[in-house]
Amino acid sequence: MSNNVIVGQSGGPTAVINSSLAGVYKTARSLGAGKVYGMKYGIEGLLKEELVDLDILLGDRMSIELLKRTPSSFLGSCRYKLPAPEEDSTPYVQLFTLFDKYGISAVLYIGGNDSMDTIAKLSRYGQKVASPVRFIGVPKTIDNDLCLTDHTPGYGSAAKYIATILKEVIRDSSVYDIRSVTVAEIMGRHAGWLAGAACLAAGEDCDGPDLILLPEVPFEPEKFLARVDELQSRKSNVIIAASEGVRTTDGTYLCDLVSTAGQLDAFGHKAILSGTSRYLSELIHDRLGCKSRAIEFSTLQRCASHLASRTDVTEAYAVGGAAAAAAFAGESGRMIALKRMSGYPYQCVTESVDVQKVANLEKKVPLDWIAPDGMHVTASFEEYARPLILDELPPIYVNGTPRHVHL
Amino acid sequence: MSNNVIVGQSGGPTAVINSSLAGVYKTARSLGAGKVYGMKYGIEGLLKEELVDLDILLGDRMSIELLKRTPSSFLGSCRYKLPAPEEDSTPYVQLFTLFDKYGISAVLYIGGNDSMDTIAKLSRYGQKVASPVRFIGVPKTIDNDLCLTDHTPGYGSAAKYIATILKEVIRDSSVYDIRSVTVAEIMGRHAGWLAGAACLAAGEDCDGPDLILLPEVPFEPEKFLARVDELQSRKSNVIIAASEGVRTTDGTYLCDLVSTAGQLDAFGHKAILSGTSRYLSELIHDRLGCKSRAIEFSTLQRCASHLASRTDVTEAYAVGGAAAAAAFAGESGRMIALKRMSGYPYQCVTESVDVQKVANLEKKVPLDWIAPDGMHVTASFEEYARPLILDELPPIYVNGTPRHVHL
Repeated sequence: MSNNVIVGQSGGPTAVINSSLAGVYKTARSLGAGKVYGMKYGIEGLLKEELVDLDILLGDRMSIELLKRTPSSFLGSCRYKLPAPEEDSTPYVQLFTLFDKYGISAVLYIGGNDSMDTIAKLSRYGQKVASPVRFIGVPKTIDNDLCLTDHTPGYGSAAKYIATILKEVIRDSSVYDIRSVTVAEIMGRHAGWLAGAACLAAGEDCDGPDLILLPEVPFEPEKFLARVDELQSRKSNVIIAASEGVRTTDGTYLCDLVSTAGQLDAFGHKAILSGTSRYLSELIHDRLGCKSRAIEFSTLQRCASHLASRTDVTEAYAVGGAAAAAAFAGESGRMIALKRMSGYPYQCVTESVDVQKVANLEKKVPLDWIAPDGMHVTASFEEYARPLILDELPPIYVNGTPRHVHL
Repeated sequence: MSNNVIVGQSGGPTAVINSSLAGVYKTARSLGAGKVYGMKYGIEGLLKEELVDLDILLGDRMSIELLKRTPSSFLGSCRYKLPAPEEDSTPYVQLFTLFDKYGISAVLYIGGNDSMDTIAKLSRYGQKVASPVRFIGVPKTIDNDLCLTDHTPGYGSAAKYIATILKEVIRDSSVYDIRSVTVAEIMGRHAGWLAGAACLAAGEDCDGPDLILLPEVPFEPEKFLARVDELQSRKSNVIIAASEGVRTTDGTYLCDLVSTAGQLDAFGHKAILSGTSRYLSELIHDRLGCKSRAIEFSTLQRCASHLASRTDVTEAYAVGGAAAAAAFAGESGRMIALKRMSGYPYQCVTESVDVQKVANLEKKVPLDWIAPDGMHVTASFEEYARPLILDELPPIYVNGTPRHVHL
């Protein structure tokens, strides 16, 4: 049997998903892989036989260094969900024929929940047909919502971005001698890991956000307004970090509650607003009568490699390498997880866990890490998240902007 | 007469406005100033006699280094417009009484158009009453719209931020094997300097934006859609950089044309959108039927010190220092300008110009720096802007985020 390896990337991009690709490639190479292939556009591309040869693309050291500093999925991505092998084996027959054709002994798949589901299904089908091909999942998601791992690569860099940008926004919001409320909207539809990371803006030089709204806590407008009003009475510039996934007690996302309040914009037109932060900002303005503005941190949270956490980059690289090593050691149907050995000093190692136990589950912020009033996080959250944003891996700047690599 | 100096900051924040403050302080100190005062919240705070002692706040070297890396206005800001001294001398009488009381020999004011207007009026009034106080303006604006200076401090860092973020967004937008159009919304209500800076994303590793829409060119929907359609026919991911100041031929801002097109959002609700990029994105989706998304770069353009251009930081420091030096040399009613001596290698010096000729004027992008079809900039624009984003001044990171200073 040949000893070729194939690696793919799937789901939403992160700042460090390519570090995991670099880790897979370098380790597979050093453990004696034949060829190392990449799937273009994940499993979806593989089904169309769109393979690339990573030895050609990443053969020299500088490409690896640039790859580690390039955001988003170098190989392209997909959001393709395989059917259950028990119900429809068509794509499996096709994929295993390709594994055979290209002499693939190991399949590494870098992604979040859906990607772990893909690995789980492939390994289940592989067992059924007694295939020697090994399947290992490499975790990746800014959402940090995978089970059985202390955290996910991608989260630390997103958290560092959120904390840094929020600090800059807080400085920006405090320049005028007037009362104002700033609402920053942070990603995360179902779990508050990213919104909670706003607490990391706090330090000796910054109060951090005054309130943090998480998807885990139903939004109660009157309680919220009372808190904002009370904060306004004792500080000029109130800062609120709100998850895009905040919902009312009846389960409606705030971002779907379009505000059409009568306020006129700078040009005398009626303002029609949508989005969680816009909704909250309008609510505050209408009910409390103070200046309020909304800022969406948007897609930059997942692609700001220029502000990556070095801890995150290193761990992403390590889980990629550990995945290749596990495959070479004969493991299959596993996901590489991060296990925290100690908090201060922070130490973390990799281990492999049963991918079937990870797929399709979501890890939320523990309720005892949320403040009693539901509008902030506790010191336990900060202790958990702080080590993940430490240290930097600066871009390689060429002509004033970070240099990237792409296909 | 005492030899005390007072410095203020005004208008919108930038990433490097505090470098100019550092430059004023250090030079005034080294040229033998008595006390160096800061106005809290600009002229508005000064009228309330809100002064701070910069020797106490910035007395040690590390504070200066942190100040250069802190975004937004350290002293606070205002948007206060003085009346014409010929019409109402009340605030002038008040201010000159304060100058006398605090032994002020020089007033340095860091800001944009309105701030230069303030300096112009103060020096006019000072001449009338034969005051020995000198008034010097220190230019600052991300908008780059001041006359008589090659460019303004603050622009280079905003341009570097825009170029870097756009590169990351371009990588982010190319991960899926589907056709899409991304519209990035960039600041600048009246001039296209910031939107034009999107061209700096282009390089060996990146195509940069396919189209750039500037406020200088009236928006023609059919011509625009035809161009997008043509681009879509030959590349998967089309990138458009649009100024927030783009207007229709009848002068209406696109951001005021709210789109209520029938598209449903992910939750089945009708989407109601506002903003330039949202409007364009919706227009493209409706008329061309392709996937389109809008990204607002928002306020981060002016406060992202973590991505400051070192060239910009250095120049901001230099104009601050030159302003203090000019005041000590007896000049008044002047603004410090930047004069480009050569492009490659880039060399720039400071000079002083008549502030009366700067106040209340706006510099737009020259029409011959705009592409013939009105939807991009020429090589001349890039040659002008590229040197301004070169080199970096990394933050001083503490516990994973940049350390700042504040009052």
